[in-house]
Amino acid sequence: MSDPLRFVKPAVRRVAAYTLAPRPSRVKLDQNENPYELPDTVKRHVLERAMARPWARYPDFNPEPFCARLAAHAGWRADGVLAGNGSNELIEALLMVTVSEGTPVVIPEPTFTLYSLLTGILGGRAVPVPLDDRLRYDAPALSAAQRDSGATLTIVCSPNNPTGCSLSRDAIEELCAGSGLVVVDEAYGEFATWSAVELLERHPNLIVLRTFSKAVALAGLRVGYLLAAPELVREINKARLPYNLNFFSQIAAETALDDWGSVSGAIARILREREALAAALARVPGVRCYPSDGNFLLVELRDAKPRPVFEALAAEGILVRDVSRYPRLERCLRISVGSPEESLALLDALPGALERGREQLEAQ
Amino acid sequence: MSDPLRFVKPAVRRVAAYTLAPRPSRVKLDQNENPYELPDTVKRHVLERAMARPWARYPDFNPEPFCARLAAHAGWRADGVLAGNGSNELIEALLMVTVSEGTPVVIPEPTFTLYSLLTGILGGRAVPVPLDDRLRYDAPALSAAQRDSGATLTIVCSPNNPTGCSLSRDAIEELCAGSGLVVVDEAYGEFATWSAVELLERHPNLIVLRTFSKAVALAGLRVGYLLAAPELVREINKARLPYNLNFFSQIAAETALDDWGSVSGAIARILREREALAAALARVPGVRCYPSDGNFLLVELRDAKPRPVFEALAAEGILVRDVSRYPRLERCLRISVGSPEESLALLDALPGALERGREQLEAQ
Repeated sequence: MSDPLRFVKPAVRRVAAYTLAPRPSRVKLDQNENPYELPDTVKRHVLERAMARPWARYPDFNPEPFCARLAAHAGWRADGVLAGNGSNELIEALLMVTVSEGTPVVIPEPTFTLYSLLTGILGGRAVPVPLDDRLRYDAPALSAAQRDSGATLTIVCSPNNPTGCSLSRDAIEELCAGSGLVVVDEAYGEFATWSAVELLERHPNLIVLRTFSKAVALAGLRVGYLLAAPELVREINKARLPYNLNFFSQIAAETALDDWGSVSGAIARILREREALAAALARVPGVRCYPSDGNFLLVELRDAKPRPVFEALAAEGILVRDVSRYPRLERCLRISVGSPEESLALLDALPGALERGREQLEAQ
Repeated sequence: MSDPLRFVKPAVRRVAAYTLAPRPSRVKLDQNENPYELPDTVKRHVLERAMARPWARYPDFNPEPFCARLAAHAGWRADGVLAGNGSNELIEALLMVTVSEGTPVVIPEPTFTLYSLLTGILGGRAVPVPLDDRLRYDAPALSAAQRDSGATLTIVCSPNNPTGCSLSRDAIEELCAGSGLVVVDEAYGEFATWSAVELLERHPNLIVLRTFSKAVALAGLRVGYLLAAPELVREINKARLPYNLNFFSQIAAETALDDWGSVSGAIARILREREALAAALARVPGVRCYPSDGNFLLVELRDAKPRPVFEALAAEGILVRDVSRYPRLERCLRISVGSPEESLALLDALPGALERGREQLEAQ
């Protein structure tokens, strides 16, 4: 019997297998989750609706009424919307219909790792564009990379995970005037001050991604959507798996839209806490806190190693994200904006944890 | 502005956009769904467990305890299991890590259309192998096609949708001894008399797919799984999207496994009804009913066109699947095995519907 692994593509074999072991915690600030659950009354309404629907029957092949709801919510046309099992799934469908061997895809660096992972698996060529020296988007460099590579796709996460920077309206419009398709992943869009959705009308090559996992507090149920020109949506839809969105997640998303008041209340609280936490972190000696348009903050440690600081916090039951393996972020941690109580717990434990990080740096 | 569609791969542009409009019906026999819902007590237990879990928190990155449950259920090792948002998603992940431009993929014909659709989108070359003249698998032809094409993958749905035929253990073992990976999609496996899972130990190039959508009556929640050698699972896992299985569907699947007695009771009732319905259909003049190992029957109409028969049944509120556009099935309908009452409604309406199909044939 020959080795079955030789039938796996070399580009896949080269990818390091990745797993994230769950860690117990009392303060969970590692996945940019929303600390404010939907109200129990809303959840119970979802459960009632679920009981009234047969579980043995498939969801809609294409959930058109739900897409119309999403369209109205986002301010776009119903035939320009796709719903999915998280926006990740729609990124995958988009890349499947556009990327083949050698396809150039412009991707800023550092950013959400899924873009380059899937581009690589599909045989495409990721063209990395570093952020500037203050970890902001370098718009001229993005446009130059787009032009020089003849990019089929340019993918920008705005606000960017894990740095929090956003790309300006002018910069996105300039990319849209350039080569190929332009993807703006607005997973954190509800925490920002504007949305690229308003540019869709003018730019048939623009694609905007949204999710219910962050601002809408439904990360456990995996709902995302994609907005673009209808003719482009029709093509991307060919790679969307049929019945991809289960009925329960769809009902939960619809019910959250019905109760948008509590969602926007949570967003307002998170925005207030973001500013309060950023100000408090800026006062911690040895910590630089970058400005963020998302529900998380990137902090750079001047004189401590991130890994022991992460471990010391985890030992106190406080989970943050160690992003020190991202390019340019060797000294950084990403901290989700939680509740004020969670911020206090973090700020309380941080000085001691930093001390541990400094010791390790000196021990080198 | 240049045409954004020119950035979509030509292979995708050529695929016909496909949609399935929902039709109201009182007897739904078009999607091979299970007519027997899980008991309300089981569902309420799922809802309770869902209320006890935060919705704003992501599911496990990789749901290891759930995979261990699936492994124990199927009789395979825990590190050889992947869980997904329906088995479709796992087929997609598998094809993404193995198929690139020109990759030969042996696919019987007719079968479930997703295999060739995704193979085409990824740039692969589908090598079709027709069923024999009695719509059974042609094992020697499959082995010959695998050998002659140097197949990277051979994908067999067994029992086969939409014909109901199965591939024998010997034939699968012969394919496993040949070139490339061998995928056995057992979406309907619980209705068959044996499973290829027992061959996994001997064949590290064998991959088996299973689903909770048919026998387990959870089509609305989209849960599937993949079984293979651990080293192969590790590679396929690289293309599985993180957090792909939402917490609610996972809880529902776990609870169904806990209550397997009611699931296997439903399977037994469907198997009895399959034989009763097959016998009754065989007595309808002008109808040929093929033997089936699934929870559906393929019927061939000797002297009527399928489309008007489908429409006449739909007008009576009875939905079946018109499969007449599949290769070789120009005269065929696929009918899911429902409850005895649903069979009676179908058998009651069928003679009149056949009359309509005959009229249209004569009118040509």
